[in-house]
Amino acid sequence: MKKHNFSAGPSILESNVIRKASQGVLEINNTALSILEISHRSSEFTQIIEEAKTLTKELLNIGDDYEILFLQGGASLQFYMAALNFSRPNGTAAYIDTGTWSTKAIKESEKIGKTITVASSKDKNYTYIPNNININNNIDYLHFTSNNTIYGTQFHTFHKLSQLAKQNSAKLICDMSSDIFSKQIDVNQFDLIYAGAQKNLGPAGATLVIVKKESLIKNGNLPTYLNYNTHIDKKSMFNTPPVFSIYVSMLTLRWLKSLGGIKSIEQENNKKASLLYNEIDNNPLFVGIVNKEDRSKMNVTFDIRNADHKLKFEKLCLENGINGIYGHRSVGGYRASIYNALKISSVCFLIELMRKLKQII
Amino acid sequence: MKKHNFSAGPSILESNVIRKASQGVLEINNTALSILEISHRSSEFTQIIEEAKTLTKELLNIGDDYEILFLQGGASLQFYMAALNFSRPNGTAAYIDTGTWSTKAIKESEKIGKTITVASSKDKNYTYIPNNININNNIDYLHFTSNNTIYGTQFHTFHKLSQLAKQNSAKLICDMSSDIFSKQIDVNQFDLIYAGAQKNLGPAGATLVIVKKESLIKNGNLPTYLNYNTHIDKKSMFNTPPVFSIYVSMLTLRWLKSLGGIKSIEQENNKKASLLYNEIDNNPLFVGIVNKEDRSKMNVTFDIRNADHKLKFEKLCLENGINGIYGHRSVGGYRASIYNALKISSVCFLIELMRKLKQII
Repeated sequence: MKKHNFSAGPSILESNVIRKASQGVLEINNTALSILEISHRSSEFTQIIEEAKTLTKELLNIGDDYEILFLQGGASLQFYMAALNFSRPNGTAAYIDTGTWSTKAIKESEKIGKTITVASSKDKNYTYIPNNININNNIDYLHFTSNNTIYGTQFHTFHKLSQLAKQNSAKLICDMSSDIFSKQIDVNQFDLIYAGAQKNLGPAGATLVIVKKESLIKNGNLPTYLNYNTHIDKKSMFNTPPVFSIYVSMLTLRWLKSLGGIKSIEQENNKKASLLYNEIDNNPLFVGIVNKEDRSKMNVTFDIRNADHKLKFEKLCLENGINGIYGHRSVGGYRASIYNALKISSVCFLIELMRKLKQII
Repeated sequence: MKKHNFSAGPSILESNVIRKASQGVLEINNTALSILEISHRSSEFTQIIEEAKTLTKELLNIGDDYEILFLQGGASLQFYMAALNFSRPNGTAAYIDTGTWSTKAIKESEKIGKTITVASSKDKNYTYIPNNININNNIDYLHFTSNNTIYGTQFHTFHKLSQLAKQNSAKLICDMSSDIFSKQIDVNQFDLIYAGAQKNLGPAGATLVIVKKESLIKNGNLPTYLNYNTHIDKKSMFNTPPVFSIYVSMLTLRWLKSLGGIKSIEQENNKKASLLYNEIDNNPLFVGIVNKEDRSKMNVTFDIRNADHKLKFEKLCLENGINGIYGHRSVGGYRASIYNALKISSVCFLIELMRKLKQII
């Protein structure tokens, strides 16, 4: 049975990317060697990682004042690493709290120095993006999560945050784990962007970091692995990088380019989100969970109005190959993650099932 | 052309493991989903990581007082993490310096607290394992690298180090990146063992950690990702683990078990090392680099006596599919890494070429 993979991450990858990845495990570039067993210093891998960096720059229109890094440890290690590299002695770090991931980032910053939350949507279980941001302190940086995978909220513009950071002479840092490469962005607004690969980029195990070189303070006392300058100096080859995850990420970036770049995939993503939210709003059995204007175009959270219909809907999904549709335990309900690689046909199929539910209840 | 992969790491994996890994990228366990796109919380992956842990315990005869973790960041992040978790306030850490990797570990410990080098083979460019170990201080732990991949030296017994640690009421920590699973060991001698996967275990991107639970100090102030207790509490699922690297590691462990366990592979490894060192010692064109009694059974370093023969030997290797035979730039000469998955036939083939060289010079 064909699966429609709505998993929140690790998540769907494009089918040709998967086929090529599988082939690369058998043999890479006619070397009679697997991608898994070649040296990271080999010309084969050097070309792969360089192509991954070049494609990232090309797709997101990034200049040479930024460095592209492929690290390990996921966003969870970046929470600490970002704070460590961007905090000044006796400085203050400012965070916008949009739930789970922001909360975890705040916790790591608090281990380093003074940390303030300048806006939060905690009062309504993170069902909206807070607009009212007050910065009264002198801050080192402003940190936010562009898309909250769990609650299904998303910042649709970075303009205000960028302005706020500028007005406060602060750096702007963003965890873009779950919406990077899904829409056009202006990287120049940021000093640091980080993202776990396992949503729109590749398999779990690689972490993409985009860092503005001149924004970094040189500090040789930081733990070597946790110092962005280490990885900039060594071009992401300070230690053995996650070779396979980077290879598959490169294949995904090639696919994005072949589609016509981020502009094209953004149009597709807009269509998918619009179709699905439209169904949620018009199908009387379902209800959206978050504020309409803050709805994520990557993670669509919704619920069934009548709890009696839950089991029937879930059975329908299961019988029809819908994978990964359950909401996170802290939200409940359902979550359809409609990342880049998920086809519009899968969204339409889910909508069909949502309509079918009306007939069988 | 068939390749004989003597690469130091990432390095050769067993051919059936590679085939199964390639298949898993296409589809895992009849799910119609790739191993790359399933949730790390899925039952499929939960079973995989639990099997990997169980096999590790079984193969190395590890009791329940130890926890098996699969982390990210390689040994390079462990250098810092080990020191961070095992250093006491105002304590002293002791290191044995056998070159590059030890040196890097020492550097990270120095960022945390007082660090002393209690033995070193630096005086002879790390061509031997230092025997003369003097510990006069009260130390928190003793750290060493069991096998030096670059120089080709190896500790063949841990008894003395274990005794020394005990006498000093110190913990014993070992970086076993390049010889774990290659021979039988007594894990009970250690409080912490860590190893990058990319030698004897699996693809780059996973780091195996074996930690004695009662040896850890509870310290909630450590950065969350860098605290072993975080990963113990969350069973290696604090954040998204490197799913694919763990999957392939599990396949490798299954293969090791099917061979008859570590005892069997140790016998094979002894044969391979013995054959190759025998040729180096008896072929007048070649010379070993390190002290005979400290020779590594994983990384065989050697050189050609007459520099005029180098190009001919290298051409011979290239034409016959020998991969990854060059020595590390800090040593020069040649290095044949003969990890678990390298067949005895590949060692014999290399020996044939070394003999052939006599005929063509």
